[in-house]
Amino acid sequence: MKVVANIYLKAGVLDPQGKAVHHGLDALGFDGVKDVRVGKQIVIELDKQDEQEALEEVKQMCEKLLANTVIENYEVEVKK
Amino acid sequence: MKVVANIYLKAGVLDPQGKAVHHGLDALGFDGVKDVRVGKQIVIELDKQDEQEALEEVKQMCEKLLANTVIENYEVEVKK
Repeated sequence: MKVVANIYLKAGVLDPQGKAVHHGLDALGFDGVKDVRVGKQIVIELDKQDEQEALEEVKQMCEKLLANTVIENYEVEVKK
Repeated sequence: MKVVANIYLKAGVLDPQGKAVHHGLDALGFDGVKDVRVGKQIVIELDKQDEQEALEEVKQMCEKLLANTVIENYEVEVKK
């Protein structure tokens, strides 16, 4: 089973990578962009069958390793 | 409207960041992890109202700036 963890900076935390992308898009002529935020998407393949158990394990992974919970939030979901 | 672009390495392309995360998870005692791939999730806020138009614009952004289409694939979706 594949589980996706989306990890992104909390609202209010400065995102210099997002700012750089925003400027790049402006320079390429994409107008109408109001904001850009860059996060991580980590796809983890587990040999579990139970969805709830897999989601719970990936949440633990986020807490312990994948996310810096001081400045980042995360969401986990099963990848279809 | 917020549009999400998920950008990930194509199958077969070596993912050293994913390998490092995999080792880290092993070291923390998470067994049963078969594979880890690390990608980017870029959330773009546009001042468009039409979903199809917004998705099309973000696809163009991926082609021109956000993704390296030699080694990366991307998917775009409207964020609810």
